[in-house]
Amino acid sequence: MPEKIKKAVILLSGGLDSATTAAIAKSEGFDLYGLTFKYGQRHKIEIESAKKVAKFLNIADHRIIDIDLTSFGGSALTDLNIAVPKDGADLENTNQIPITYVPARNTIFLSYALAFAEVLEAFDIFIGVNMTDYSGYPDCRAEFISAFEKMANLATAAVIENKGKYKIHTPIINMSKGQIIIKGIELGVDYSLTHSCYAPDEFGRSCGRCDSCRLRLKGFAEADLADTVEYVDAKK
Amino acid sequence: MPEKIKKAVILLSGGLDSATTAAIAKSEGFDLYGLTFKYGQRHKIEIESAKKVAKFLNIADHRIIDIDLTSFGGSALTDLNIAVPKDGADLENTNQIPITYVPARNTIFLSYALAFAEVLEAFDIFIGVNMTDYSGYPDCRAEFISAFEKMANLATAAVIENKGKYKIHTPIINMSKGQIIIKGIELGVDYSLTHSCYAPDEFGRSCGRCDSCRLRLKGFAEADLADTVEYVDAKK
Repeated sequence: MPEKIKKAVILLSGGLDSATTAAIAKSEGFDLYGLTFKYGQRHKIEIESAKKVAKFLNIADHRIIDIDLTSFGGSALTDLNIAVPKDGADLENTNQIPITYVPARNTIFLSYALAFAEVLEAFDIFIGVNMTDYSGYPDCRAEFISAFEKMANLATAAVIENKGKYKIHTPIINMSKGQIIIKGIELGVDYSLTHSCYAPDEFGRSCGRCDSCRLRLKGFAEADLADTVEYVDAKK
Repeated sequence: MPEKIKKAVILLSGGLDSATTAAIAKSEGFDLYGLTFKYGQRHKIEIESAKKVAKFLNIADHRIIDIDLTSFGGSALTDLNIAVPKDGADLENTNQIPITYVPARNTIFLSYALAFAEVLEAFDIFIGVNMTDYSGYPDCRAEFISAFEKMANLATAAVIENKGKYKIHTPIINMSKGQIIIKGIELGVDYSLTHSCYAPDEFGRSCGRCDSCRLRLKGFAEADLADTVEYVDAKK
């Protein structure tokens, strides 16, 4: 009897980390179910990129979930009154939490992924968190992911009924941006479909100066590859 | 200098457990911030009850969050094709997870509560989970709450910045329904404002036969008090 194909839920932001994570999950033989959030982020153009990535990777079931985190605020990504920093200072000071941190965002995203997984009878959840470059977000750290996994394994009926045990996969957590890009290229990822910029202009062009653009450009430089997304002002 | 009033986030469903929990939190001196979810539940009339309870307890900031769990389905509460059991069988068989369990619901609710708390700079979250009567929901157990609390204390910027430590309060977790009602009456809760029924009729009257009605009626009987909500068919 052939082995049953295992389902996995993948959180897709539209950025290069989640696209690479999805490609890795696929290369491990998982059948992917995508989850993307429209959470009031100012760079909602990334949702279009998430759709393109899902299509490119032949993800059959890709859900876009509308959740409004703007009413809570507290982040430059969800509150238009807080500017996205463009001077790279947050990248220098790794002891400080960047203002682009969105309160409890990954906790909320993973909670929805858990609900989706339970309904699908899937036990594998992939998330493209990364600690190496830009370790300022608390909910991108291995200890957070590990605590979430423990909690998930007490939260659901599926676990009580002994149907399985949840695993939160973070295949790129210890890679540099350059390593992530090299891995993705090996797996055939088309990074021109992805979007990273926190503050794109009205034409969807990346600013080239926010922390997310700076890291992306640094990654392509490390990988010795050209980034094909369009920049207004790309600082190398 | 007078002690600063502590803020707390309270999850309000509109039911009697969360109303009692809110009254307890208030009696402990917390300034309450309410959170209620419109999640596609068939008994959405409970949201009106949550608003009444919030008003009754003078909760200044009560947010109603619209999240759609119907697209995931998997529960009699969010899928109109799955009937709400009315024979009381789920109450007899405590080894089985009731079909009214909503996948990862409390995980999602608590995640939003955590986001709200972080933005408010509050570190106390109250939730009216209960294990004694009707212990069939995995995400109402103390071990789940404890694991969520551990995760929360790794998830946010507020914790990394040493602003405080989250505590998930579950003051009624070990009370029987009768004890909960007696406690609430002591604190002045008006239970006529609350709603418990999973399957109310078009006039908002409680069915009297679903598990939630049965437990509520059992609680009032234990407390030797009359329940003033209107029932279509109240089995004693």
